[in-house]
Amino acid sequence: MVPHLVTALNGPLLDLEKKILTATPAIERWFRMEWQEHTPPFYCSVDLRNAGFKLAPVDTNLFPGGFNNLSPEMLPLAVQAAMAAIEKYCPDAKNLLLIPEGHTRNTFYLQNVARLMQIFRQTGLNVRLGSLNPDVTGPTPIELPDGTTLTLEPLERSHNGRRVGLKNFDPCTILLNNDLSSGLPSILENINEQNLLPPLHAGWAVRRKSNHFAAYDEVVKKFAKMIDVDPWMLNPYFMKCEGVNFNENVGADCLASNVDTLLAKMRKKYKEYGIKEKPFVIVKADAGTYGMGIMTVHDASELKDLNRKQRNKMAVVKDGLEVTDVMIQEGVPTFEHINESVAEPVVYMIDRYVVGGFYRVHAERGNDESLNAPGAHFVPLAFAHQHALPDYQAKPGTAAPNRFYMYGVVARLALLAASLEMEKTDPNPEVY
Amino acid sequence: MVPHLVTALNGPLLDLEKKILTATPAIERWFRMEWQEHTPPFYCSVDLRNAGFKLAPVDTNLFPGGFNNLSPEMLPLAVQAAMAAIEKYCPDAKNLLLIPEGHTRNTFYLQNVARLMQIFRQTGLNVRLGSLNPDVTGPTPIELPDGTTLTLEPLERSHNGRRVGLKNFDPCTILLNNDLSSGLPSILENINEQNLLPPLHAGWAVRRKSNHFAAYDEVVKKFAKMIDVDPWMLNPYFMKCEGVNFNENVGADCLASNVDTLLAKMRKKYKEYGIKEKPFVIVKADAGTYGMGIMTVHDASELKDLNRKQRNKMAVVKDGLEVTDVMIQEGVPTFEHINESVAEPVVYMIDRYVVGGFYRVHAERGNDESLNAPGAHFVPLAFAHQHALPDYQAKPGTAAPNRFYMYGVVARLALLAASLEMEKTDPNPEVY
Repeated sequence: MVPHLVTALNGPLLDLEKKILTATPAIERWFRMEWQEHTPPFYCSVDLRNAGFKLAPVDTNLFPGGFNNLSPEMLPLAVQAAMAAIEKYCPDAKNLLLIPEGHTRNTFYLQNVARLMQIFRQTGLNVRLGSLNPDVTGPTPIELPDGTTLTLEPLERSHNGRRVGLKNFDPCTILLNNDLSSGLPSILENINEQNLLPPLHAGWAVRRKSNHFAAYDEVVKKFAKMIDVDPWMLNPYFMKCEGVNFNENVGADCLASNVDTLLAKMRKKYKEYGIKEKPFVIVKADAGTYGMGIMTVHDASELKDLNRKQRNKMAVVKDGLEVTDVMIQEGVPTFEHINESVAEPVVYMIDRYVVGGFYRVHAERGNDESLNAPGAHFVPLAFAHQHALPDYQAKPGTAAPNRFYMYGVVARLALLAASLEMEKTDPNPEVY
Repeated sequence: MVPHLVTALNGPLLDLEKKILTATPAIERWFRMEWQEHTPPFYCSVDLRNAGFKLAPVDTNLFPGGFNNLSPEMLPLAVQAAMAAIEKYCPDAKNLLLIPEGHTRNTFYLQNVARLMQIFRQTGLNVRLGSLNPDVTGPTPIELPDGTTLTLEPLERSHNGRRVGLKNFDPCTILLNNDLSSGLPSILENINEQNLLPPLHAGWAVRRKSNHFAAYDEVVKKFAKMIDVDPWMLNPYFMKCEGVNFNENVGADCLASNVDTLLAKMRKKYKEYGIKEKPFVIVKADAGTYGMGIMTVHDASELKDLNRKQRNKMAVVKDGLEVTDVMIQEGVPTFEHINESVAEPVVYMIDRYVVGGFYRVHAERGNDESLNAPGAHFVPLAFAHQHALPDYQAKPGTAAPNRFYMYGVVARLALLAASLEMEKTDPNPEVY
């Protein structure tokens, strides 16, 4: 199903779409060469914003939930990509241990876990669930809305202390679907004999969005040069402030000054391209997730006038993680709508393959706000058509498959950036 | 769409299906390990016969036509598998040269070529068609029924003689979809700088079915041991005769004696499993294809009484290739029907991935005859469901996805056999 979309049908993005489609062989070759040098994350989802005048990733998730929102038709693609990934890490594996988030009452999230288990079972692996929750001391069944059951089991270290698994279950790969916001669990430390994916430093206790977007800067610079576009068309400006304390008003000067700087840079670009929108920035926790710790700012003065509730909202994010590092990012308005609601595409990848996506749609949010909030719903993207029905003859901007191809390219730029980011931030880099 | 099928719902095959489903993790692991040792053919299609009491490949095609018969929903899978294959051979490639068969008036075949071009274009490659036909001396457009056009171009060697391509088109990979029945073309000899796939010795001027089935014997022996079944459940007996001349009645003794031997072995097995069918063998050219040079034999005496027309039919196959080597293979009746017509599954693979399949259906043929004949039609197999809806709880034999998984496993056994066969018959084996 291709949802009926209202997208900007003119402006600079049409030129970008045209350039990307024309350069397809060069682009795919470039990705192949990059994947010879860099290992893609095991899996990844990327939130994109299409402003009509620019298209950019705004969030790159290395512990993607939401696989249940992909259309069932995309499952075989996910299974095949997972087979390629497994073959790379653990060809002799029979067992995969999946470690989900702790919030086991969220049935949407549990459906994501069930979908992931289905994908990996279809690759031919035995899949079981290990829990980081200390309350899980034995096999703990959780019922899903469809009547099926997931069973959480306590993690245990092997007798020699070198491996982690479950009772009578020794996995080759341990796949985290828990973003480690609450810290690095000691039971997962110093695992050298097994593949722990993504690595611990991908967890939000350590990871910083600003490192990701710094890597993305590099990736886009090369890519934009190759296809001859202004890198800004694909890249939101960003800056950061460290040592911020929203409740005690520490770091306010840095925030205000960076907001001013970014808005000034944006105004210049908007003028260059004749964009009439009012520029805004997104202030967000550099280590936050789940749409928490995010606010939209049109002017630095707004930061001074935050009330107690707004300050609290920015000060602490998921699992009580305190915000001290803050990223200020150019806001990319979304010009996409489904019916009356604003929408943004989310693209899912396993290994280096795009395996599906959906539109996150929110009826109560504006085009300058985060849509990752309660009340969002999801409309599967017809990514299958990307491959099935490309249309090089179509007028730019009119063919959904062409737009989805462009989304897949930009999402893969973010994927590549995540790969570079993980290399650069690896506390124990391999020496070659 | 899952076609309505009538399949044997009892008998030894149910036990096989159950064993294969139960052993899925071991099977997938085994394939992964085998693919560490052996390179899969670039692409491959396998004709299977499901007799209800056994399931076996009867033909393994290394130059598969018929990609146009796969359902469009499977295209993304084919594209993703092709991406994996290309990355392996030629990550820095932008250009792929496809060399199709010469019979350019067969619009069904031309649609297969168009589909292959579509798949490889979607991987991001520039794809052009090179012709082995000496009449093609410049760009030669051929119109397809849907109004689109394919353009054949003459092959040319580079100035230094080391590469082959087209005018202004230097490919990294040369993909043959021409089975070289009429001999090894000199323009394709001694190509060392480019990937010529499949290799020349896969062409029917050199290849022998009996080598393939000898390799299949080995593969099945290991596989059957792993899942604890009689290898005969998956493997048709075969023997061969060399130096046969059907027109001059040379080699008749060998044929008659081998037919007798095979029928005797089959009767023994049929008795062991309580099978009431009348055994038959298939006599076929060891180097033939396109369903040519094939006959069904129930008794050795039938070979003595061949008339002139029947002898002619067996003596010469595609592109005038003369038959001297003959394979006699255990006949596997097909128990599958669609409506009133007998059907056999054909499974398509790219690299090591199952990317689709269809039922070949023939209203005028019996369940003991080759269905690869004029008048056949094709019903896409719902292979996508293999991954989407496996049902480990289903009663054996009742769930189409489970049956398709089993078909995919057996087809991959033939794929692996083709890989071993190519290694063993390589005239210039790599030394490690």
